[in-house]
Amino acid sequence: MAGLPFRIDLEDIRFVLYDQLDIDQELTKIPKYEAFTQDVYEAMLDEGARISRDVLYPINGPGDREGCKLDRDGNVTTPSGFKEAWKVQAEGGWIGLSAPPEVGGVGLPHSVTMAVTEMFCGAAMAYQMYPGLTAAAARVIHKYAPEAWRQPIAERMFTGKWAGTMCLTEAGAGSDVGENRCKATPVAGEEGAYLLDGEKIFISGGDSDVAPDNIIHMILARTPNSPPGTKGLSLFLAPKFIFDENFDSTTRNGAYVVGIEEKMGIHGSATCTLALGDRGPCKAWLVGREHAGIEIMFLLMNEARIGVGVQGLALASTAHQFAKAYAAERLQGSSFEKWKDPTAPRVPISLHPDVRRMLMTQKVYAETLRSLTYRMGHRFDLAENDPAQHDRLIGQVELVVPVLKAFGTDIAFEMSAMGVQILGGYGFIGEYPMEQLVRDAKITSLYEGTNGIQAMDLIGRKLRIGNGALFIEWMKDANTECGLAKAAGFASEADAVEKAIGQLAQTTMHLGGLGAQGRLDLALVQAYPYLRMFGTVQLAVEALIQARVAARVIAEKGSTPHLAGKALNLRFYVRNLLPQATALAKSIQSNDDSCLDPALFQA
Amino acid sequence: MAGLPFRIDLEDIRFVLYDQLDIDQELTKIPKYEAFTQDVYEAMLDEGARISRDVLYPINGPGDREGCKLDRDGNVTTPSGFKEAWKVQAEGGWIGLSAPPEVGGVGLPHSVTMAVTEMFCGAAMAYQMYPGLTAAAARVIHKYAPEAWRQPIAERMFTGKWAGTMCLTEAGAGSDVGENRCKATPVAGEEGAYLLDGEKIFISGGDSDVAPDNIIHMILARTPNSPPGTKGLSLFLAPKFIFDENFDSTTRNGAYVVGIEEKMGIHGSATCTLALGDRGPCKAWLVGREHAGIEIMFLLMNEARIGVGVQGLALASTAHQFAKAYAAERLQGSSFEKWKDPTAPRVPISLHPDVRRMLMTQKVYAETLRSLTYRMGHRFDLAENDPAQHDRLIGQVELVVPVLKAFGTDIAFEMSAMGVQILGGYGFIGEYPMEQLVRDAKITSLYEGTNGIQAMDLIGRKLRIGNGALFIEWMKDANTECGLAKAAGFASEADAVEKAIGQLAQTTMHLGGLGAQGRLDLALVQAYPYLRMFGTVQLAVEALIQARVAARVIAEKGSTPHLAGKALNLRFYVRNLLPQATALAKSIQSNDDSCLDPALFQA
Repeated sequence: MAGLPFRIDLEDIRFVLYDQLDIDQELTKIPKYEAFTQDVYEAMLDEGARISRDVLYPINGPGDREGCKLDRDGNVTTPSGFKEAWKVQAEGGWIGLSAPPEVGGVGLPHSVTMAVTEMFCGAAMAYQMYPGLTAAAARVIHKYAPEAWRQPIAERMFTGKWAGTMCLTEAGAGSDVGENRCKATPVAGEEGAYLLDGEKIFISGGDSDVAPDNIIHMILARTPNSPPGTKGLSLFLAPKFIFDENFDSTTRNGAYVVGIEEKMGIHGSATCTLALGDRGPCKAWLVGREHAGIEIMFLLMNEARIGVGVQGLALASTAHQFAKAYAAERLQGSSFEKWKDPTAPRVPISLHPDVRRMLMTQKVYAETLRSLTYRMGHRFDLAENDPAQHDRLIGQVELVVPVLKAFGTDIAFEMSAMGVQILGGYGFIGEYPMEQLVRDAKITSLYEGTNGIQAMDLIGRKLRIGNGALFIEWMKDANTECGLAKAAGFASEADAVEKAIGQLAQTTMHLGGLGAQGRLDLALVQAYPYLRMFGTVQLAVEALIQARVAARVIAEKGSTPHLAGKALNLRFYVRNLLPQATALAKSIQSNDDSCLDPALFQA
Repeated sequence: MAGLPFRIDLEDIRFVLYDQLDIDQELTKIPKYEAFTQDVYEAMLDEGARISRDVLYPINGPGDREGCKLDRDGNVTTPSGFKEAWKVQAEGGWIGLSAPPEVGGVGLPHSVTMAVTEMFCGAAMAYQMYPGLTAAAARVIHKYAPEAWRQPIAERMFTGKWAGTMCLTEAGAGSDVGENRCKATPVAGEEGAYLLDGEKIFISGGDSDVAPDNIIHMILARTPNSPPGTKGLSLFLAPKFIFDENFDSTTRNGAYVVGIEEKMGIHGSATCTLALGDRGPCKAWLVGREHAGIEIMFLLMNEARIGVGVQGLALASTAHQFAKAYAAERLQGSSFEKWKDPTAPRVPISLHPDVRRMLMTQKVYAETLRSLTYRMGHRFDLAENDPAQHDRLIGQVELVVPVLKAFGTDIAFEMSAMGVQILGGYGFIGEYPMEQLVRDAKITSLYEGTNGIQAMDLIGRKLRIGNGALFIEWMKDANTECGLAKAAGFASEADAVEKAIGQLAQTTMHLGGLGAQGRLDLALVQAYPYLRMFGTVQLAVEALIQARVAARVIAEKGSTPHLAGKALNLRFYVRNLLPQATALAKSIQSNDDSCLDPALFQA
């Protein structure tokens, strides 16, 4: 049994989209989505699953082993099959799924786009970074680039003719974006044109061969006499090839990849050092106002961080699917009831209680993360089309984004490692796909703001918006869910979740109090544990919602193992995982300052 | 700042050996150790540290990238520098550190051997597996091989002339050792000689070039008409080269490596598939009685599992040392007190509270794991030389071994991953040593019995010995430590630990009750969470012990940052980590059976 079948949990994806979010009924009421009946969604999901299974998964393991290559002219060759996969996605319209039709997009709702993206990432996360970042750059261009370029460039990117990158990080400017040193000097007599000088590192897809026509780099840099810090940063568009008025390439621009990183995982994704203005001038054009760089980045941040959350969900779910398939096939040991009898038949390890505990942990986290993630996407869909609800919906998304990103990706790493544990020694071996998931997953806790940065965003910004207004609204919604779950027959679990929500509220106030007392240091020590507690409670709420929805569907249409599993998920979560929230509350409220002792960590 | 300095926490190693275990005073009372004064230990520690830093660490990263190579004749080439490192260790007597002088060993106490092994593993875990397994095989040979071979072969191995392996696993026999199918057929007319036929997988160092003269494989196989299961297994010695009466090699034996695994980590350690009797006959000799194979393995198991615990400790400590060095140098962001001022000076990230929380978590786990590990080694030292205390001491080691192995290695993996998090994006990059630690660490939770197997050993065997007698004794010792800590001024922390010990006792009884009620299934579901709870409480006890010892030393000799850190460790542990034990107790006592629902995990 070498290798493992790649499976997508389409049954659960459908459950969230149709039964839980009711998108096939609710979204058709919105004019821009009225053409999207369930048939259309089904066709997208089926075809997305087919591409994931037949096109993307087959290049994931080989791409990891082969990696990327850089030639002397700064050109990156991606692993075998990546170009062909890009072609399939480009021709099928899969790069601009949620982009509007006028720039070559499909105009799908975010929730459905997420479902497809989950499949693609689960199949080949490293590959999927090329279209993912291209679409992200195209969204910026479509909104902020010089007027005449918006449609033509965005369309070229959403349809896969051109690729794109986001260039923020420098060697001295990682979490501290304000330390960016890259210089932008205006070109005399050319309105909006600049020459860039500097070096960007950790640029995903900084060069590649998937879209040989052009690559558009979105670059943060500093114009002359700008103020220090993030407020002095502006955003620029620098193409790999300078293009003429027909958008045909003319000359090579001075943005050259001078190195690619050896790294723990995502070997198929070229992580590049990009030298700007080193080999010939690097011409670039201002995107948005001067000094609006960080503002534009902030506007994109929610989407980008949710995107990383989707990667986490994808890896957690894929890890579970692999582990489940392995455990059902691998014979080892007899049933625990007959463990003393060496002649008893060997059984699949999925029957061993310790393995079932691990499989259940993976399943519950994957399914509750899916519920949370798609619900956030759904709120985007609703918000964009309902001005009256817009601010409330987006506010709730904003509050939860750091939780989804950081808790989701840490859980993804842990669930991938648990997948290795379920496979035993085979989990460590490259012949099986599990160890790659662990290596690929680790990056998700680091990029788009490390998980520590997310925790600071949560307590330092999100909780303070409107003096805690977002959290109060969140609590109201969460408690409403507890009430609904009680009415649906889950009283004891809903009680436990309600209590945990209360603990979270109390802990939130405790942190707020520390701020008021000028003990920001103590609050910052506990920022990540607090985010972890928030996530632990949040997923309990998701489990409640799903159990209630499943009970309704069972009453309407009869039960299935998948539907019956939702009540089991809830019970497992409340009894085995939710108690961690209490432990975290206790830690956070201890006001422990031992790690702040100045004699520690002096080198 | 590419790369990071390799550092060993010699200050803490000395603290445990001299201040906590008092080995320089206590062990000299034992005749076989009377020559070992503190000067001798100091010389060993200093030289061990030098070899780790100058010989082993430099081959660790390159060895990971280079990996091992296999030729068509079944010969493995190890990465550059491995042979030279072996030569240094062989000539200096570092392979047989704890072996008796009559077989070329140094005869050091186990506790000191552990300290040196910790340094070696922390510097180059993959490399250190070659001498580690050679010494393990030599110990078996010295005790159980045919009489005339014991001294000459063991000496050749302990002095690094020959290497050795342990061959248990087969494709269908991993955790389920009893499924071993390898056949041993007696050679007519040659007492004790057999021909082996079968295939072993996952054999570390199954071939290598470190000791070209010979490699001795210790192999589990099944003689004709043996009973099924583990009781039908016998242990054999099969050399790579058949040797004559002078132990000079004559002909190649039919034990050939036919494949080496691509894997997540420990790339420098060749993980081999060994074909026995496939290319020519594989001659082997019975070691111990027929059918005593598993019994002999069991006798070695404590030592082997503690050895893996030492690897865990080594990786956790090394991860902390790297992270600490990085955090003290890397400038990023301003002090949190001035975060709104972009002109404020950039500070080392070790000043950021979130980073300090992570560094402290690593430090506390590494130091308490060291305390636990060396204490177990010390008990071996005392037990071997005190017949009156032998059974009590070894019983306490036996109880804790699965906790040390499984909890220690899971913590090692988590602390290595936390190291990556502290380094941010650089943690993911091969140029820095942190991501390799994560990849190397994962194997420790899988081999020598997966951590799930350890948990079953703990609840199914260790807790049941003498009807819980070992645990009752453990509890008595732990409570004594609480009393001593109270007297030393740590009353509030000791109270919290005492309460956790009580919860552990209650949870232990709960599990026992499940067994008595025939609900072994529920107990097995919670076996690993129980082990995790045990480990969490055990390390709290270690933190108590160390805080008390440090207070004594401070009173005697004055304070140092390291000594003062022990009280901080205790406070941090009790307030931030120990609360997890309560959460685990709650899960375990919930009797949740949701994951056992038969409709789940059907494939």
